[in-house]
Amino acid sequence: MVQEQMNLIPQGFLFAVAEASIKKPGRLDLALIYSETECVVSGMFTTNKIKAAPVKHNIKKIRKGIGQAILVNSGNANACTGKHGLKDVAETVRMVGNLLKIDPDLVYACSTGVIGVPLPMERIRSKIPELVNSIGKATIEEVAKAIMTTDTFPKVITKEIKISNIDVKLAGICKGAGMICPKMATMLCFIMTDANIEREALDISLKEAVARSFNRITIDGDMSTNDTVLIMANSLSKSPKIKIHSDEFRLFKSALNELTYELSKLVVKDGEGATKIIYIEVANAKSEKDAEKAAFSIANSMLVKTAIYGNDANWGRFMSAIGYSGAKIREEKIDIYLNGLKIVEGGLGIGRDNEANEVLKNKEIFIKIDLNSGRASAKVLTCDLTEDYVRINADYRT
Amino acid sequence: MVQEQMNLIPQGFLFAVAEASIKKPGRLDLALIYSETECVVSGMFTTNKIKAAPVKHNIKKIRKGIGQAILVNSGNANACTGKHGLKDVAETVRMVGNLLKIDPDLVYACSTGVIGVPLPMERIRSKIPELVNSIGKATIEEVAKAIMTTDTFPKVITKEIKISNIDVKLAGICKGAGMICPKMATMLCFIMTDANIEREALDISLKEAVARSFNRITIDGDMSTNDTVLIMANSLSKSPKIKIHSDEFRLFKSALNELTYELSKLVVKDGEGATKIIYIEVANAKSEKDAEKAAFSIANSMLVKTAIYGNDANWGRFMSAIGYSGAKIREEKIDIYLNGLKIVEGGLGIGRDNEANEVLKNKEIFIKIDLNSGRASAKVLTCDLTEDYVRINADYRT
Repeated sequence: MVQEQMNLIPQGFLFAVAEASIKKPGRLDLALIYSETECVVSGMFTTNKIKAAPVKHNIKKIRKGIGQAILVNSGNANACTGKHGLKDVAETVRMVGNLLKIDPDLVYACSTGVIGVPLPMERIRSKIPELVNSIGKATIEEVAKAIMTTDTFPKVITKEIKISNIDVKLAGICKGAGMICPKMATMLCFIMTDANIEREALDISLKEAVARSFNRITIDGDMSTNDTVLIMANSLSKSPKIKIHSDEFRLFKSALNELTYELSKLVVKDGEGATKIIYIEVANAKSEKDAEKAAFSIANSMLVKTAIYGNDANWGRFMSAIGYSGAKIREEKIDIYLNGLKIVEGGLGIGRDNEANEVLKNKEIFIKIDLNSGRASAKVLTCDLTEDYVRINADYRT
Repeated sequence: MVQEQMNLIPQGFLFAVAEASIKKPGRLDLALIYSETECVVSGMFTTNKIKAAPVKHNIKKIRKGIGQAILVNSGNANACTGKHGLKDVAETVRMVGNLLKIDPDLVYACSTGVIGVPLPMERIRSKIPELVNSIGKATIEEVAKAIMTTDTFPKVITKEIKISNIDVKLAGICKGAGMICPKMATMLCFIMTDANIEREALDISLKEAVARSFNRITIDGDMSTNDTVLIMANSLSKSPKIKIHSDEFRLFKSALNELTYELSKLVVKDGEGATKIIYIEVANAKSEKDAEKAAFSIANSMLVKTAIYGNDANWGRFMSAIGYSGAKIREEKIDIYLNGLKIVEGGLGIGRDNEANEVLKNKEIFIKIDLNSGRASAKVLTCDLTEDYVRINADYRT
């Protein structure tokens, strides 16, 4: 690893990648994340009732709150694969544990890709020894690359904070692209930190960070069988232990919030076929629930997303989406702004549609809806809907 | 009017159309439906909290349950137009009533098209006399054409039943295309009948018919500000009065159910950019609510709709949509059929994906999901999602 990168990566975390031909040959599709010492681990998983085999496996495993390695493959979700799928996870985890000479209970497994096809176990089995032997030889970017499916670029964010004057680092990678929805995403996210933190504090931090980032983005309204966020803290920074209700806890939480928010922004930026990132803010709602309903309704509206793609400030579609969102609203109180330009006042257009069409030529679109009905607000991130989204998803398996 | 068509149209209904340049010049955009005698009228309207001016107008008017004419324009929704929009509706309705020499309270008004732009009242005002003077000169197909926006063909269905050996006719027209969603559609639907029917019976029949047709179709998950279904019964068939709980009532209901179901099928067939009509049946659910949730979740999934467009029997996307639908399901009990071909058994693929890809080349796709968990079922209609949908909606106003 090059020196600059080493400086940003939390101490004691090592990486390996391999090609197991799960995706098309010539692409990385297997990765291993390993900590030199045992970690405190927190995780969040898809709420889809149909869960992939590795998700079921991890949900059981994480009860103990500890771990030391994560094996990830892309190209195959190992979802809807029944008992056989669970057996395959158990086998890969056992292999990795044995080769790393750690308890297999400390090894998590994650998959992403096509649903309903058994893992190509022969190819994976033959690659795992090479993967474990090369631990420490890959960069974090390479791991981020190995977990991609329809992503067009690897997603890595790092943060650094000081706890009692000691440097504590966080690094996160994720993959996303399609199927990003209210509750998480078709998303894998792995966060590593050398923070010394108690489990309860880690759990609370992760929950809060996910609620404010990955649970506030939406690309196509679908929700995957495989969504997983895992955070591993190995305490190798040797800082004093971070406990809840402390200043250090608040510092750690804010760094983790920033890290996951920036990752979620990268996911939206890389939305399948997307040409624009759309920030939606609903302000002055009666309650946060109302603000969220209105914001997600706009974010999930195909009519809004295609209009923005077409540089068409068709604000009637925003109004309509607010109207059917279920949020408590009064039509005649709604103001709408596009990148700061007021286009609707008191529910009525104010004749600035041509200016607004020009504004939409930006690659970053800020929609602000002022409901003028209360004091709560919510922000949601999404992207536009293009012909390429259709093309990518019509051809995904072919 | 040609003789054959006359035979299918309920007695006493007359039509007129005009070009008022609300849409691009050269296209019909104004229509009048008129009954020679006063009718019993029932209506259903969008549940969007943001309602177009004509919808607000009609909702008040319909309390009396009577009417004699409907004025419709396309090209402009008269939605989000505030008090001015309401004034415009009142004016057009008054003009039509005066010229027809009937109480303006008997005239309904409907609009469809772009939101947020005031009606071009000058052009409409100048066309209304011509419209009223030409009453009886247009065919029902021309009215169906005049109410189209992004529709590619006019939609007309007629039915005939016998009540006490007397011919009773029903004729319905509608427009749809985009924004068709669980609760109605961007849809206008006008049904005329010469049945002699009491108001309560008409109300119940319409509610049931809409619940089983227009409320069970979905194109893009959006819900419009203008959705309206109106039925007018003028009793000119001179049949005995149809009352609830009678055999005649059941006969009328079943004809109306068929008529609205066939119209809703035409709407889906004409879904924006659609190349395929998709019938989704969820069987053996714990409750009808569960069946509906699962069926709509599949129908609204962009990933399902693009896969079907791409002839890709990616059943994992069906499973995933069922999983996040909120329906009570057991993964290992789910069977899936595509046009009768079983492709999933007990939640697992059975290796028929290539055959299934071939099946998807049909223009009519029947997806059956057997949840094997109860005895309730639900059917939903939708269409595939194509690049053309995006193109149509990105360019709608330009």
